[in-house]
Amino acid sequence: MPTLYHSPNSRSSRVIAQLMLMGKLDAVEVVIVDVPRHDGAGRRDPRNPHPEGKVPYLVTDEGVGIRESAAIMIYLDELFGQPFSPKMGEATRGAYLSWMAYSGGVLEPVLVAAFSGLDHPALAETFRGMAEVAAELERALHTAPYLLGQGLSVADILLASPFQWAPHLMPDSAVIKDWVARVGAELDGDALAAFETEAMLHIAAEEVA
Amino acid sequence: MPTLYHSPNSRSSRVIAQLMLMGKLDAVEVVIVDVPRHDGAGRRDPRNPHPEGKVPYLVTDEGVGIRESAAIMIYLDELFGQPFSPKMGEATRGAYLSWMAYSGGVLEPVLVAAFSGLDHPALAETFRGMAEVAAELERALHTAPYLLGQGLSVADILLASPFQWAPHLMPDSAVIKDWVARVGAELDGDALAAFETEAMLHIAAEEVA
Repeated sequence: MPTLYHSPNSRSSRVIAQLMLMGKLDAVEVVIVDVPRHDGAGRRDPRNPHPEGKVPYLVTDEGVGIRESAAIMIYLDELFGQPFSPKMGEATRGAYLSWMAYSGGVLEPVLVAAFSGLDHPALAETFRGMAEVAAELERALHTAPYLLGQGLSVADILLASPFQWAPHLMPDSAVIKDWVARVGAELDGDALAAFETEAMLHIAAEEVA
Repeated sequence: MPTLYHSPNSRSSRVIAQLMLMGKLDAVEVVIVDVPRHDGAGRRDPRNPHPEGKVPYLVTDEGVGIRESAAIMIYLDELFGQPFSPKMGEATRGAYLSWMAYSGGVLEPVLVAAFSGLDHPALAETFRGMAEVAAELERALHTAPYLLGQGLSVADILLASPFQWAPHLMPDSAVIKDWVARVGAELDGDALAAFETEAMLHIAAEEVA
């Protein structure tokens, strides 16, 4: 059974949401770990084998460690028969790979810069900014309800997640806001919230112990 | 036939190297385009359909645009039967996905910051720095000649490429230097150099015209 290292209300929460959507949360061992938080709370958890103490981190049955949300989500989707991604050879396969790479390679650096008020020509030159991110999402969503067309995919879960957690970074675009709400409605928000609350209590109990 | 938008001596050169390695350069239409360069040369090329004028950009037979080097290289490897990547279910599949996501999601932001002398706590907190990049590469390469083990993969071509073009950013590590040289020796450097020289002449002729 693969092991997922997860910290509640973090970048690994979208992997929990994916597992719940697939009905496969019980097919993965979830280890709750602490991480340093923006507000100074939390700490690097010695039980987390991620080389830099981050989450998510997945260890496969073969003992291979997988880092980066996009890689973990592609891997888990493949492991369970690709319920939420196009198979090789399908017309939307390229768009799927493109969005998954765009998430870590563009959206994440742009959001980190926006969140931190960091404005530097090298970042703008390489990654551009929120205006270009909004334009890219709108281009796909003007003609279809989800990034790959009519159906929800792993790409939607990954790309919508930052805006679910940090609504103040959401572009002022009805098309994007509607999409984020649509993706949220497909996920079991109540079950995820309950899971995260229990995980927070687990971490608090560990720290007292 | 898919169309690759390529600019010589840029991030798209590694895609040309991959196509040459697969013997598939003639199975893709390569359109040479200009891009703005760090030194102020070049310009955004109106023939390049990439939404932000960057390279590489691939348009599939179905008219789907793929951006981000990792996505394009995974897609092209799949299109030609996965000669340089592990198939789904193979033990190294997770490590492959992890390295491909790490390239754009960690290596690239860290290199951009290092190249620009940009030092900011938000970047360090999210992406860490060159020391962690070096440690991550060394961890894989201490026990095997290539990132996934005994054989060259698309991950090696992608991850080694920044150090081939910007050797001054190469970590001071014999293990990493040897790996970059080993990957370079697997690629046809002479053919690539000749291709790039012709592409540069093509751009120069366009600008005179």
